[in-house]
Amino acid sequence: MANLVYVLNGPNLNLLGSRETAVYGDKSLADIEKICRTAAGKHGLTIEFRQSNREGELIDWLHEAKAKAVGVLFNPGGYTHTSVALHDAIRAIGLPVIEVHLSNLFAREPFRHHSYISPVARGIICGFGAEGYRLAIDALAGVLKSEKK
Amino acid sequence: MANLVYVLNGPNLNLLGSRETAVYGDKSLADIEKICRTAAGKHGLTIEFRQSNREGELIDWLHEAKAKAVGVLFNPGGYTHTSVALHDAIRAIGLPVIEVHLSNLFAREPFRHHSYISPVARGIICGFGAEGYRLAIDALAGVLKSEKK
Amino acid sequence: MANLVYVLNGPNLNLLGSRETAVYGDKSLADIEKICRTAAGKHGLTIEFRQSNREGELIDWLHEAKAKAVGVLFNPGGYTHTSVALHDAIRAIGLPVIEVHLSNLFAREPFRHHSYISPVARGIICGFGAEGYRLAIDALAGVLKSEKK
Amino acid sequence: MANLVYVLNGPNLNLLGSRETAVYGDKSLADIEKICRTAAGKHGLTIEFRQSNREGELIDWLHEAKAKAVGVLFNPGGYTHTSVALHDAIRAIGLPVIEVHLSNLFAREPFRHHSYISPVARGIICGFGAEGYRLAIDALAGVLKSEKK
Amino acid sequence: MANLVYVLNGPNLNLLGSRETAVYGDKSLADIEKICRTAAGKHGLTIEFRQSNREGELIDWLHEAKAKAVGVLFNPGGYTHTSVALHDAIRAIGLPVIEVHLSNLFAREPFRHHSYISPVARGIICGFGAEGYRLAIDALAGVLKSEKK
Amino acid sequence: MANLVYVLNGPNLNLLGSRETAVYGDKSLADIEKICRTAAGKHGLTIEFRQSNREGELIDWLHEAKAKAVGVLFNPGGYTHTSVALHDAIRAIGLPVIEVHLSNLFAREPFRHHSYISPVARGIICGFGAEGYRLAIDALAGVLKSEKK
Amino acid sequence: MANLVYVLNGPNLNLLGSRETAVYGDKSLADIEKICRTAAGKHGLTIEFRQSNREGELIDWLHEAKAKAVGVLFNPGGYTHTSVALHDAIRAIGLPVIEVHLSNLFAREPFRHHSYISPVARGIICGFGAEGYRLAIDALAGVLKSEKK
Amino acid sequence: MANLVYVLNGPNLNLLGSRETAVYGDKSLADIEKICRTAAGKHGLTIEFRQSNREGELIDWLHEAKAKAVGVLFNPGGYTHTSVALHDAIRAIGLPVIEVHLSNLFAREPFRHHSYISPVARGIICGFGAEGYRLAIDALAGVLKSEKK
Amino acid sequence: MANLVYVLNGPNLNLLGSRETAVYGDKSLADIEKICRTAAGKHGLTIEFRQSNREGELIDWLHEAKAKAVGVLFNPGGYTHTSVALHDAIRAIGLPVIEVHLSNLFAREPFRHHSYISPVARGIICGFGAEGYRLAIDALAGVLKSEKK
Amino acid sequence: MANLVYVLNGPNLNLLGSRETAVYGDKSLADIEKICRTAAGKHGLTIEFRQSNREGELIDWLHEAKAKAVGVLFNPGGYTHTSVALHDAIRAIGLPVIEVHLSNLFAREPFRHHSYISPVARGIICGFGAEGYRLAIDALAGVLKSEKK
Amino acid sequence: MANLVYVLNGPNLNLLGSRETAVYGDKSLADIEKICRTAAGKHGLTIEFRQSNREGELIDWLHEAKAKAVGVLFNPGGYTHTSVALHDAIRAIGLPVIEVHLSNLFAREPFRHHSYISPVARGIICGFGAEGYRLAIDALAGVLKSEKK
Amino acid sequence: MANLVYVLNGPNLNLLGSRETAVYGDKSLADIEKICRTAAGKHGLTIEFRQSNREGELIDWLHEAKAKAVGVLFNPGGYTHTSVALHDAIRAIGLPVIEVHLSNLFAREPFRHHSYISPVARGIICGFGAEGYRLAIDALAGVLKSEKK
Repeated sequence: MANLVYVLNGPNLNLLGSRETAVYGDKSLADIEKICRTAAGKHGLTIEFRQSNREGELIDWLHEAKAKAVGVLFNPGGYTHTSVALHDAIRAIGLPVIEVHLSNLFAREPFRHHSYISPVARGIICGFGAEGYRLAIDALAGVLKSEKK
Repeated sequence: MANLVYVLNGPNLNLLGSRETAVYGDKSLADIEKICRTAAGKHGLTIEFRQSNREGELIDWLHEAKAKAVGVLFNPGGYTHTSVALHDAIRAIGLPVIEVHLSNLFAREPFRHHSYISPVARGIICGFGAEGYRLAIDALAGVLKSEKK
Repeated sequence: MANLVYVLNGPNLNLLGSRETAVYGDKSLADIEKICRTAAGKHGLTIEFRQSNREGELIDWLHEAKAKAVGVLFNPGGYTHTSVALHDAIRAIGLPVIEVHLSNLFAREPFRHHSYISPVARGIICGFGAEGYRLAIDALAGVLKSEKK
Repeated sequence: MANLVYVLNGPNLNLLGSRETAVYGDKSLADIEKICRTAAGKHGLTIEFRQSNREGELIDWLHEAKAKAVGVLFNPGGYTHTSVALHDAIRAIGLPVIEVHLSNLFAREPFRHHSYISPVARGIICGFGAEGYRLAIDALAGVLKSEKK
Repeated sequence: MANLVYVLNGPNLNLLGSRETAVYGDKSLADIEKICRTAAGKHGLTIEFRQSNREGELIDWLHEAKAKAVGVLFNPGGYTHTSVALHDAIRAIGLPVIEVHLSNLFAREPFRHHSYISPVARGIICGFGAEGYRLAIDALAGVLKSEKK
Repeated sequence: MANLVYVLNGPNLNLLGSRETAVYGDKSLADIEKICRTAAGKHGLTIEFRQSNREGELIDWLHEAKAKAVGVLFNPGGYTHTSVALHDAIRAIGLPVIEVHLSNLFAREPFRHHSYISPVARGIICGFGAEGYRLAIDALAGVLKSEKK
Repeated sequence: MANLVYVLNGPNLNLLGSRETAVYGDKSLADIEKICRTAAGKHGLTIEFRQSNREGELIDWLHEAKAKAVGVLFNPGGYTHTSVALHDAIRAIGLPVIEVHLSNLFAREPFRHHSYISPVARGIICGFGAEGYRLAIDALAGVLKSEKK
Repeated sequence: MANLVYVLNGPNLNLLGSRETAVYGDKSLADIEKICRTAAGKHGLTIEFRQSNREGELIDWLHEAKAKAVGVLFNPGGYTHTSVALHDAIRAIGLPVIEVHLSNLFAREPFRHHSYISPVARGIICGFGAEGYRLAIDALAGVLKSEKK
Repeated sequence: MANLVYVLNGPNLNLLGSRETAVYGDKSLADIEKICRTAAGKHGLTIEFRQSNREGELIDWLHEAKAKAVGVLFNPGGYTHTSVALHDAIRAIGLPVIEVHLSNLFAREPFRHHSYISPVARGIICGFGAEGYRLAIDALAGVLKSEKK
Repeated sequence: MANLVYVLNGPNLNLLGSRETAVYGDKSLADIEKICRTAAGKHGLTIEFRQSNREGELIDWLHEAKAKAVGVLFNPGGYTHTSVALHDAIRAIGLPVIEVHLSNLFAREPFRHHSYISPVARGIICGFGAEGYRLAIDALAGVLKSEKK
Repeated sequence: MANLVYVLNGPNLNLLGSRETAVYGDKSLADIEKICRTAAGKHGLTIEFRQSNREGELIDWLHEAKAKAVGVLFNPGGYTHTSVALHDAIRAIGLPVIEVHLSNLFAREPFRHHSYISPVARGIICGFGAEGYRLAIDALAGVLKSEKK
Repeated sequence: MANLVYVLNGPNLNLLGSRETAVYGDKSLADIEKICRTAAGKHGLTIEFRQSNREGELIDWLHEAKAKAVGVLFNPGGYTHTSVALHDAIRAIGLPVIEVHLSNLFAREPFRHHSYISPVARGIICGFGAEGYRLAIDALAGVLKSEKK
């Protein structure tokens, strides 16, 4: 559909709200889904919102997005730092992908400073907690609008 | 003032619109200033918008912001990757600072992948061109609102 | 249950006993399960013993352990060296996790010398073959006892 | 079966033919399967041809190959560079494994220059596009013949 | 003697119980000696328990163990990370040596992540405080039993 | 000539068959020449087969190939890992060059894991002993055929 | 003047006393100036005390010191770790320069462990807070006395 | 003006002739200015000759050159090794820039072996003392002539 | 005693005055002891002055200082760069330790640029020859006074 | 002869004009020889102009230059980055050697950024194409003149 | 004495002949002492032959040698790779020191490839087993003779 | 011949005696040849003494030695640090090879600290000038004698 956006969430994000709230905030993933739907609605976009702990399933969903969606909002969780396969999937599908992270990765351990996703993402939004998803929907809407021109 | 935001731009950003438009987009810095003012207005914020090619002047302005502003939106340009002094200035002032970059630094040369600013920024928005400033104003507004609570 | 311990085994451990016995010993995974049950019984603990070749499934099981178990004994196999996602899962669940390895990783190839699991494990037992599982059950029992105090 | 060969394909290879054809060529995975079957037929070999985006499923299939096949032709895609678990699986099964890559990895990004698979592969064929699979079938047939002697 | 085990403790371990108890626990070295004697008694082993701040004396004692003991339990303290000479001593004596650390070294500074002792130890037990010594005695007893077979 | 292929062999390959046969196999260089001629004949190609221990002579021959041949099969021996000059020569001549190695370099010392030749080779075949030359002739024939189209 | 000493302070030091007092102490820069004047007076030295956030201005002042002063006490702040230009300025002027830091840089982030100033400083005093300036004045007085001999 | 060339000199170059003459030679900056004017005159070029210790001022002057000059001769002094901002300025202005150094940087400390300027300079002249400026004027004249064609 | 300070000197410092005087100065260790006693006297401190070539003995003395002294002045000589055990000893005793070096380590070989002692020292004084000891006594006196408050 | 200059060209430079003209320009080596002769004539110098693909022959010629020439202009081609032997030859002969490169090495692959020749060259000229040779002759003439004084 | 030579042996060398004879040979340290005495006798030298496992004692002996001997033959064992203090001791005493190793360190683990002793040794003899001591005595005799001239 | 030894000398050694005598000594290569012949004569060995500046010729000679000689004394000059091809040649011929260097490489530039030859040499003698060749002949004689047993 011309207005469908995939919002894909990687490993451990299903625990949001209960897990290390000092780092990740107290919003649950369901709260974030609502934030996304509201934000998307303002731009006439609809949302397919999913979470998986499995790298392979995330790859499948990116492939699926190629056929069904106009863009992807992606929080790859821990796979951010280790997955060449997700990097390749993003290159393969050719859609605009926005990388989002709840915490400021650059203020944490060094192994979180490198992302295999960033070089193939359209843009990165990082450190704003659940609000980052809303910003990313806005950002994606802007990208889609500018590409239509 | 309780609603003043400093928008600080580092070296070479005065050339925007004429400089490498494939990388940085065709908006001038004046265009970006307008985008910021419009976005800020929606949140009841006012903008002090400046650009300098000098590391020391940017430090001065960050110090000045401490006394006058509630937050900073900062695109440090090339100093992003080399300035411990700006890192220290941000730590010293204690205001929320949003780091913005027009281009996706992680899709460019390796020396642009490390930022001395990111570990002390509240959040990072990168790769969305001039739109990134609008998103950053929104993000900062959100941060300020959540801190008031 | 207050006395349930998850014993989770990562990739290729299903081949134990037939695979490179000079490195991993001649005990099968079923033998190790028995060792664990016997050792756990002495401490009044019961065992949920599983193996998976899939990183995502191991993450799911760690999440499941959060709800059902008091601690985890974990041999992450090859994911030890590459999985930030498992690292995050362990941090997220907050249970004591004991990392076990059959072989002495430090006497093998350099890429086996770094573990993403160790910094978030309570303790590490490595190089004692199948016996290491028995020691780890003992160790976990000790940790649980000391925490009750 | 004494003449069965597993041809295993890793993440994103299902998109072949439509994905970055300048890098990977315009043959689909189905085309490659035909190339393999034809080449194998000349050596009296039969082919089990599969693709998965999941690291764990690829490990399962390597284990399965141990029981059923005489050799493996393996294009691990993005897992080439990140998977110790696949490295261990190949060591565990003891079959001759031929590593194939469509593109010349060494002419691409530095993170593609290291393979965890190569040290445990019998040989590597890289850079010949779909033709590389035919060469690899030939190579594997040669290895099998020489080992019978 | 066929049942004598050397328990050797490196630099600063004489201060245990008073030193950084958050890191090393509140047991004194005398407490640990008792734990070792009790654990050893259960396996019919006797204990020679020593501590030295001197690298050379630790080497002497390892040499002495070669003539008198059947195995060694070794906590090399700060020499763990810097002593090739202790590495060589362990190789030279040919006895099974179990490396023990009170704290989880991998959760501390990077310079504590490398051990010159581990590659020549039979196994490593790390992060269990004073309990780790009891586990190590058990582990050594198991190693000795399996080697008799 | 439109069907001439240069097969160039670098340092120490003249000793093949007598030198470290466990690593390089028991075929002599004369045996390999025969393998190449037979394989080339099937594709209507003729072979200019040479060996030199001198980097400069190998460069000369690559230059010569530019004028006389349609492609090159190249085993650069020890110069693989150290010669920018050969890298430049291959770029300069513009012919398709297939890099062949008898042994699996990636299963040997780290200094053999980097090749200055690979980034400018069309493809790489490595680890199949003398058979690798036959495969490389086939591969080159395929490349030449595909380029004619 | 034969008894004039330049005391130069780099970026962010103007905020002393209000900025991160746990790290830098609660003395203001004016307090430090007084400490310096008192200490200098005891040695018959007079003080030119300045602060700048600008690398170039600090270079200018070092040049100026060459003409007017007998030595320099220098706290380069964040430029310590990044400025080859200041390194060169110190070499160029040939005066004894004492490097002072309020905090113990070696107990902080790794990027603070390297100084471009130290190799060209006469000596380094680090970690004593405002007291370090007094010690540095004493140290410089000693250096000047010993050079007169 | 179509024949104006900016000759820009970075930090500490104002001290030339008095500073470390064994390294930099005994010519003053005024001597070098004369050399430049004479050399430029032979090619019908005029010279704007400046020196600054400030990175930001050098950036300003590069921007200014964009509007007024046909090329730049640049000795960035110590900023050579640390300034991404100057690198970006050169890319931004699009003029041919010749990088000159008085001393042979590659015969000095390792931190002088890397230049952020070189990748964006048209060419580099290094090690010829004041003569290098004359050569650089000649070189720039040649570049300008060849571009007119 | 409440006013006792240990001054500990590491390996080779017994040779001072005769050894490489261009680097270390012409004062003997006895001269330095006198300097320390004089300086300490002014602050009402007494001195226990020792030298050892043995890492273990230095550790013993640090432990001893814990019971008897109020602070330590420590020149660890060559052990500065290699001793984790001394690092641990300083952490263990909890006294303020001032690290002193006669020469400017940062102007010498790279292996002298890293100190295991500095991160656990209160402050560092380096490059002032024998005078450095006097400064360090002053510094320690200041630290002790400020802690009494 | 007191006015003879060797102009030595390394591997692949014989192909100039036909090889990668976008990188190296369209001048042939014969064209460059003419440029050198003309430039040398203006300074009363004569030229011995040679090219070899062989490292050893280039060493021989440098040795020969020692006996016959007053200076050397050297483009070592690919040996620039790999030849300690050429580095040693230049040190051994004691003549002024000017290093020339046609392309800007620093704008190319990282392995071209290090030169074994530069630390022993008198000066480096790089990035000016064939013109660089003319500049280098001028530079060498200047060096020779200044040394006569 | 003008003809006394210290032969100093570091840690674990007391076990020679019984320890890893495949690496170190079957000669005992007593055998080596005899070899040294015989070799020294031929040059009119006498030998002081010692072994210690303690770094500090080896330093003491080097200091002692300064007063009593004309040269030192030194096998520092495992301290070779870790001791800056021994490096400093050799620099301090100013005697010619010959470094000897029984095994070829460069054919062993990477951590044995670096020696802190070599840069301050007169020469190195390595890989000849016990014979290496005889060669080192000869070498030292030659050095002493050449220095008398 | 059963008593023939090849003494092979690499690049620039033909200049010995005239080249950097402070580093390499004042003996010419002819002097060294005499030293070798005399030393060899004492052991009933004869000498084939050669020098080449060409890596390939040195490889040829090593191959030739395989057929004619019982051992090789090899000073590879600058190729020591860069030649995998010479490393391979030594492995290929199976003769004992003694590596000799006139100067102490470990007291010189870092790039001279790594040798590709050492891991395949029987032993290394380094730093004794021309005397080192005599020692190496003695060493080789010893190796040959011990192998006959």
